[in-house]
Amino acid sequence: MGEKGMLIVVSGPSGAGKGTLCNILLNRVENLFLSISATTRSPRAQEIHGESYFFLDKNDFENKIKNGDFLEWAKVYNNYYGTPKEFVNNMLNEGKDVILEIDTQGAAQVKRNCPAGVFIFISPPDIQELKKRIVKRGSETQDSIDLRVKRARDELKASLDYDYVVFNDDLDKAALKIQSIVLSERCKVSRNKKILQAILGGN
Amino acid sequence: MGEKGMLIVVSGPSGAGKGTLCNILLNRVENLFLSISATTRSPRAQEIHGESYFFLDKNDFENKIKNGDFLEWAKVYNNYYGTPKEFVNNMLNEGKDVILEIDTQGAAQVKRNCPAGVFIFISPPDIQELKKRIVKRGSETQDSIDLRVKRARDELKASLDYDYVVFNDDLDKAALKIQSIVLSERCKVSRNKKILQAILGGN
Repeated sequence: MGEKGMLIVVSGPSGAGKGTLCNILLNRVENLFLSISATTRSPRAQEIHGESYFFLDKNDFENKIKNGDFLEWAKVYNNYYGTPKEFVNNMLNEGKDVILEIDTQGAAQVKRNCPAGVFIFISPPDIQELKKRIVKRGSETQDSIDLRVKRARDELKASLDYDYVVFNDDLDKAALKIQSIVLSERCKVSRNKKILQAILGGN
Repeated sequence: MGEKGMLIVVSGPSGAGKGTLCNILLNRVENLFLSISATTRSPRAQEIHGESYFFLDKNDFENKIKNGDFLEWAKVYNNYYGTPKEFVNNMLNEGKDVILEIDTQGAAQVKRNCPAGVFIFISPPDIQELKKRIVKRGSETQDSIDLRVKRARDELKASLDYDYVVFNDDLDKAALKIQSIVLSERCKVSRNKKILQAILGGN
């Protein structure tokens, strides 16, 4: 219909299950695409440039930061990661809906750059549940867990700046909710002005 | 959770299928209730006061109009019809979500009284399709049909004042869309402030 696609930002604390939910969403909903990140880390075996990541060298990445070419970026353990603005905008201009699955710091950056995006916060039902999930991963010391729980509570505060919150206490229900958010956003009058005008002007 | 329920207004031109969609919605979604209208027309066989309608006499109804007791009201063929404000507000205060299935004039009145409601416009895919649907009813003359098509186009203009538009060209898809709108509205951060505060404040 010539309407622009929408940017859907799925975020939340570590362990909330946003990756699993995004994969379900991509399988269920048509015309929905995952954004591809850029990074300066080396490609692993079987990772393909432009599919897994856009692999850039450090100079390239830093120049792009200076030029404002990222919707959001971060430096993690000496490597850069970021979401290329042009790649996302091209998809949106083609009418495709784009998902970004990012942490809450990244989401806050995207919110400043694209306030019209749809911001979905994935929340574990409560901090105790988050604690359980982090313990299950089995790769953390108790101190590290306590720190992450404290950080998660700080991150839950960020949920108040989002449009939607999905409590991921039941995966099926949470998947239905996130799917409903995408389908309902597509029904917003503000996203259907062109087709409405076509009907009103037709015959 | 102590959150207030939400008012969902389902409207659209005659023949758009809003009644069918509301019935499907009520069967599928929990904690959702249809508002009961008040009227001055006589009860038909098997109609029960407080279930089918609230049956009021003309004086009562006109006094309630004067007192501002209706979210919307109209006079149709010498009888009054209206949505009692107190009945709806009681359900909302109990945390129940309430559907109003009303015409576009009524919806415009509700919008003035309850701008925080969720306004869903049900649209046939185009005016030609509306024409077909009205013809199928078989009870109308050609002049009457032309008049309704012209009125429908006028009514489609009203869609631009709504939050959502559902194109009812495929009943299953339209039903999924209207269900998605209700489920996603329930995920709005603004409707979950109490539970979020409880998590943020808890242990």
